[in-house]
Amino acid sequence: MKRIEPANLYRNNDKAIGVGNAFWDLSEHNGLAGIVAELDNGVLRTESGHEFVNFTCCSYLDLDSHPQVIEGAVAALRRFGVLDHCIPRGRVQIPALLELEASLGELFGADVVSAISAGVASAGLLPLIASGHLGNGVRPLMVFDKYAHLSLAAAKPTCADESEVVTCGHHDLDFLEDQCKQYERVCYVVDGSDSLGGYAPVEELAVLQEKYGLLVFYDDSHSISAYGERGIGYIRSHCPVLDERTITVATLNKAFGSSGAAIMLDGYPKETLRIIERFAGALSYSQPVNTAAVGASLASAEIHRTEELTTLQQRMRANIELFDSLVKTDQTGTSYPIRIVPMSDETVIDAGRRVYERGFYVSPVFFPIVPRGTAGLRVMLRAGQTAEQIHALGEVLIEVGALPQAVGE
Amino acid sequence: MKRIEPANLYRNNDKAIGVGNAFWDLSEHNGLAGIVAELDNGVLRTESGHEFVNFTCCSYLDLDSHPQVIEGAVAALRRFGVLDHCIPRGRVQIPALLELEASLGELFGADVVSAISAGVASAGLLPLIASGHLGNGVRPLMVFDKYAHLSLAAAKPTCADESEVVTCGHHDLDFLEDQCKQYERVCYVVDGSDSLGGYAPVEELAVLQEKYGLLVFYDDSHSISAYGERGIGYIRSHCPVLDERTITVATLNKAFGSSGAAIMLDGYPKETLRIIERFAGALSYSQPVNTAAVGASLASAEIHRTEELTTLQQRMRANIELFDSLVKTDQTGTSYPIRIVPMSDETVIDAGRRVYERGFYVSPVFFPIVPRGTAGLRVMLRAGQTAEQIHALGEVLIEVGALPQAVGE
Repeated sequence: MKRIEPANLYRNNDKAIGVGNAFWDLSEHNGLAGIVAELDNGVLRTESGHEFVNFTCCSYLDLDSHPQVIEGAVAALRRFGVLDHCIPRGRVQIPALLELEASLGELFGADVVSAISAGVASAGLLPLIASGHLGNGVRPLMVFDKYAHLSLAAAKPTCADESEVVTCGHHDLDFLEDQCKQYERVCYVVDGSDSLGGYAPVEELAVLQEKYGLLVFYDDSHSISAYGERGIGYIRSHCPVLDERTITVATLNKAFGSSGAAIMLDGYPKETLRIIERFAGALSYSQPVNTAAVGASLASAEIHRTEELTTLQQRMRANIELFDSLVKTDQTGTSYPIRIVPMSDETVIDAGRRVYERGFYVSPVFFPIVPRGTAGLRVMLRAGQTAEQIHALGEVLIEVGALPQAVGE
Repeated sequence: MKRIEPANLYRNNDKAIGVGNAFWDLSEHNGLAGIVAELDNGVLRTESGHEFVNFTCCSYLDLDSHPQVIEGAVAALRRFGVLDHCIPRGRVQIPALLELEASLGELFGADVVSAISAGVASAGLLPLIASGHLGNGVRPLMVFDKYAHLSLAAAKPTCADESEVVTCGHHDLDFLEDQCKQYERVCYVVDGSDSLGGYAPVEELAVLQEKYGLLVFYDDSHSISAYGERGIGYIRSHCPVLDERTITVATLNKAFGSSGAAIMLDGYPKETLRIIERFAGALSYSQPVNTAAVGASLASAEIHRTEELTTLQQRMRANIELFDSLVKTDQTGTSYPIRIVPMSDETVIDAGRRVYERGFYVSPVFFPIVPRGTAGLRVMLRAGQTAEQIHALGEVLIEVGALPQAVGE
């Protein structure tokens, strides 16, 4: 009988599951995963009555529970009368997605195509980029950043069938420039804002974009709404190259507070947008954003156009600064709402458990989510957390081994 | 400068887009694609005032616009107060998905895991099957049916990095048996009910499952709700092997009338279900079904438990029979709600245009959706269409070249 030897050029389930599953089991065994709780007024309550505040929720501005967002969802359900009118949108569509895309396009100052999730958007777009159909017609060398989110890295084998794929060191600009010198066209795939707290080097990348025509594909899911004027995110706030050489996807499921995702494009002709609609994987055949999410997103977009967004961003930043005044992390002083409180691989689970018992959920991160030896408790600050809650969290984090911020720093 | 020659072992955008885009452009130029219309009481109305009935909508039972389904969505939005509580469900979750999975599990008589779409479910599960983690630990040869839906075929390059991938002829049981004799383990990936009107040979496949331990992965999206007692679909109605050797995914976005998808499993231990939650691609990191869709699905599941479902199925079947009494197709007499009215590659677009002008949308299908020379107008029957509408459609179809059913047949 033939036995199969896998190629494992771009992924390796044996390795990922072998290492990852043991840690997840350990997390769950220690009560830090597999938690089920009802959400009530910003507090989570388990069936056994344990109450806690979630410090690992990505709804950085608490727009997810904003009454206007929920009522926007209800209004759209009533107006359209269906969650979806099931037929590929390229054939016949109710105006829901077009209204969503027009509103987000105006808000973000881009041509916006919607998708059911950022992962689905990336899985659909990256192979089109690899084959040169989204770009300038030349198949680019696809360079994936080593730490690009799983939703990006998952596209490697597919891209490899349409072009060539390599993985580069984190933000390795020298490597990128070297490839730009060798290949007619290069596409760099990277998180605009990454899930462990950092931004892509947009300005340095823009130099390569201008010099070599480098195409950059950003996932800016963690900074949309939370960052920039009207919440346009980190990339669109700072990237000097907003034309066909920069493609950004961002979820609407985090700070934006609804569900779905936005693909932000500039400078592409209508024909290319049609090719996306028709050939970008699941965008062409599968479910669109449902009308409830469209309505919620339209309502959230309206909030983004008002002073309220600025107020919410300010509250989030005040909470970040308060946390930074209490606990020292590598991220101290940055605008990013995520902090990793360093712990050893041996203590991280127990520390997380003790914090949870005191009424706060912070998620232990560990290999394969982060490299070995860089474990920690991931803290996400939000606009809606109270100063009292943040003070209390800081106290217990220090009790379980976090470094206090030196007075005056 | 280096130019890239693509491998194109499993996909070829040049080919797909080269052929496909011209036909889409032609469809759109003739007003049969890119249609935008408001839905009102089962009738679509364009901005210019043209009214038509959609005969290419997959909501076979019209549950999408059922008032209980819409009110279920509203109730869930109000109860949970968010569309999603953004954190991977493996860490912390509100009970929404668990309630959905418990309800669907009871309805379909299976262990159900939810996903945001059937495409996302398949993209997550197939690589886990390829690596042996969802199955019996042995990496199977992954055999994809030639006509497997794009959402399945898209997983080929990824599966090829975890195992070996081949494509077989449509329902080629001899080929499958031959592979079963050569390989320790084989997985066959196929539509349970396909989008052009046909079912998988479940009983013949069950023989191979019993004899060789063949694993079969079905996408039964087109028959769930529309077929079987309580809408369990074609596969779960007829497959004699409902254990770990049969895995079925189905969308909730077609006849079920909501959004999202259900993965139906039998006989897997809790540990395997956890592996799916943690490592099945987007299921582990991306958006879950939002609470509006959860509420709509719970309401639809309740309807599935009543006589109303049987009534709706009967109405759909009566409409299918009425259509069959008027127009001859290869599908005449079958239980499937899809008919392809044959047209030549040259006439199909014009025929579709004339039907649309008379107030009915039927979608022209053509290469690469179907092989060259097998073009036609795809008609989907639903419970909610009236006898008058079906009679009128039959009439115009015959005017544009369809074959009438002979009297007495």
